[in-house]
Amino acid sequence: MKQSELFSRTIKDAPKNEKSLNAQLLIRAGFIDKLSAGVYSFLPLGLKVLENIEKIISEEIEKIDGQKILMPGLVSKKNWEQTGRWKSFEELFKIKGSGGKEYALAPTHEEVVVPFVQKYIYSYKDLPCYVYQEQVKFRDEIRVKSGLMRTREFKMKDLYSFHISEDDLDKYYEKVKTAYFKIFERMGLKEKVYLTMASGGSFSDFSHEFQVSTSAGEDIIYVCENCKLAINKEIKQDYLKCSECGKEQFREEKAIEVGNIFKLGTKYTEPFNFEFVDKDSSKKLVTMGCYGVGHTRLMGTIVEIYNDKQGIIWPKEVAPFQVHLIALNSRDQAINNKIKKTAEKIYHDLRGRKKEVLYDDRVDKRPGEKFADADLIGIPLRVVISERTLEKDSVEIKERHKQEVRIVKIKDLRVLNNMLS
Amino acid sequence: MKQSELFSRTIKDAPKNEKSLNAQLLIRAGFIDKLSAGVYSFLPLGLKVLENIEKIISEEIEKIDGQKILMPGLVSKKNWEQTGRWKSFEELFKIKGSGGKEYALAPTHEEVVVPFVQKYIYSYKDLPCYVYQEQVKFRDEIRVKSGLMRTREFKMKDLYSFHISEDDLDKYYEKVKTAYFKIFERMGLKEKVYLTMASGGSFSDFSHEFQVSTSAGEDIIYVCENCKLAINKEIKQDYLKCSECGKEQFREEKAIEVGNIFKLGTKYTEPFNFEFVDKDSSKKLVTMGCYGVGHTRLMGTIVEIYNDKQGIIWPKEVAPFQVHLIALNSRDQAINNKIKKTAEKIYHDLRGRKKEVLYDDRVDKRPGEKFADADLIGIPLRVVISERTLEKDSVEIKERHKQEVRIVKIKDLRVLNNMLS
Repeated sequence: MKQSELFSRTIKDAPKNEKSLNAQLLIRAGFIDKLSAGVYSFLPLGLKVLENIEKIISEEIEKIDGQKILMPGLVSKKNWEQTGRWKSFEELFKIKGSGGKEYALAPTHEEVVVPFVQKYIYSYKDLPCYVYQEQVKFRDEIRVKSGLMRTREFKMKDLYSFHISEDDLDKYYEKVKTAYFKIFERMGLKEKVYLTMASGGSFSDFSHEFQVSTSAGEDIIYVCENCKLAINKEIKQDYLKCSECGKEQFREEKAIEVGNIFKLGTKYTEPFNFEFVDKDSSKKLVTMGCYGVGHTRLMGTIVEIYNDKQGIIWPKEVAPFQVHLIALNSRDQAINNKIKKTAEKIYHDLRGRKKEVLYDDRVDKRPGEKFADADLIGIPLRVVISERTLEKDSVEIKERHKQEVRIVKIKDLRVLNNMLS
Repeated sequence: MKQSELFSRTIKDAPKNEKSLNAQLLIRAGFIDKLSAGVYSFLPLGLKVLENIEKIISEEIEKIDGQKILMPGLVSKKNWEQTGRWKSFEELFKIKGSGGKEYALAPTHEEVVVPFVQKYIYSYKDLPCYVYQEQVKFRDEIRVKSGLMRTREFKMKDLYSFHISEDDLDKYYEKVKTAYFKIFERMGLKEKVYLTMASGGSFSDFSHEFQVSTSAGEDIIYVCENCKLAINKEIKQDYLKCSECGKEQFREEKAIEVGNIFKLGTKYTEPFNFEFVDKDSSKKLVTMGCYGVGHTRLMGTIVEIYNDKQGIIWPKEVAPFQVHLIALNSRDQAINNKIKKTAEKIYHDLRGRKKEVLYDDRVDKRPGEKFADADLIGIPLRVVISERTLEKDSVEIKERHKQEVRIVKIKDLRVLNNMLS
């Protein structure tokens, strides 16, 4: 994409009504725009990041046999009444439509997925069943804050699993745990994410959250110094020792919950009387698990962790582009033409090799502005071509997260392949 | 995908509460499920079709320089008040959230996109600007009917263009027209879609709709027998002659509107005072166009057109899979094993060649059931392997829209490539 054509613009000063670092950086760099408190639009750069996050999640969930479906946001009151959540779920946005028909905008889909899947499952032979969606959700948050980390409209992946027994659920639950670690690893969060014990509700003793350690987090977790298992503050009093290794040394950290996994048992299958016929012909309630990851929240979390004074530093797999190719303008028109010609050749070359490239071809920007924009936007690899580099038939290469600048001959540009893989 | 694992199930009888053919077939074939009137969930098969439609649209819109963005569904009352549509747009779903904050669920995004794009456009140099999204919309339809063709929640592509002048808008409008024809052609609707003159509102004399001729349509159009331009019933009285060729022969047809394009002029830029600085330093209002295509409606329309008594007949580019590979079970276990082994080899082979294959590996279904399911689901190419075909080292190939069955040697299976391209 040529930057001169990109629908975007960097903003020098942080917007005054945004206190969180992630929203400040994402707005300044031209990734998102605030429509109202807790409600954001995504510019092309922002949507690319969101789609990369979505792709990583889909790939890992499909590896554990999740099948993608799409359920509606508009969910009839009667579905919510069946589980009692029409009254008990405080953050439900409620709507009265024409003819008095009432709906809630779904913040989660147990009330939809259970009667939906129920129509297709009769016997033990139809189980297990794993379905997920990547969808926009709504929550009537009384107070929004923290930019993308707590919003009224957000994108998330929600996976639901259905089983013949608790044993079978337990096995799949462990698979999801592994898949989640892989998801967060691919997003550059491996060192920062902690499997965290949290309250479990009525069915199981506890659920698990995936908490990313950041000072911008709203939660407090206690990380076992020995085995890295963490415990959420809510239930810390019940677990004086680490349930994994038995040690008692914990480190208190602020963190943000980016995912959670939950053994629901029959909590939602019972209200809908979702039964299956077992091998012995008896009818039994289906056992269920649910597993969530927030795309938009992850995007905010990644920015909170990966930044410096100059801007965002995107991890490779989520970056909107892999390469930021920058042509610096010269005052000499003949040299300018040569710079442009060489830059365009490299641009087409890289794209031919399936690299995603943002090409800063803007003619009215000084080098300082171009470098500042590139640092703010945060693409992993910067390739600069200028009068000075052209004299040596070279380009200047810099990785966003390093200080080091390298001069590479244009004919040796294949070196980029290694840096990008 | 192995059919034994697919989250889906065909249903013999049409659901009683669905009168429209598209919903009946899509529910029976396991593509969609009805949650409430005008609100549907998509099973994996249905979501694949929706994603294929989305991909075609994205590709064609990006060819005319549209840049993908994502705007929220939850839009503050004040945006709608600015244009007067809080009161005048009858089908707005309205929500009152905590703290009394009011929103509408967006059925269209002029009220969002104008103040959004406005933040990034200052001068004539920043124009034109083309942004689009593929997003879920909401409409509080008083009466829903026609299955996927008129729903309360639906997916659509909405493109918005911003220009320095009417001339520039006119040029882009023609480009969009061409792109739309290409989109509908790729979906197999080339012979069925008519560019149709419709009322234009305040700015231009008329807008254009893309109407697909089908007896299930809700609109009446008059198609010029000579040049294929059509006129919507609403404005027919004003156009006794075809504006294209001057002829007066029209054929009345029922049709469904699958897209519309609209020269908005300054209708929405004026309420937001969206101006740009022109070359002569004067400030002028930005001129705007908007262009919509409905994904879910297209899915319903395609089913209305492409079906027979046995089920759906998907056009190639929108089909959920390209090949339906069916292994017929034999009573002889040794032969069964050989069938299975051969089928799996073909399955892996086709997937290795990047073909999307649904492999009917179900062991508890009789041949008749498998054929009936395949016809109902409607994948373009059926490849059958059975005891009988194995005797000749062959498979049986049938295109869904043809009667002819061909016997092809397994070693010659590359013939499939031609049939699939």
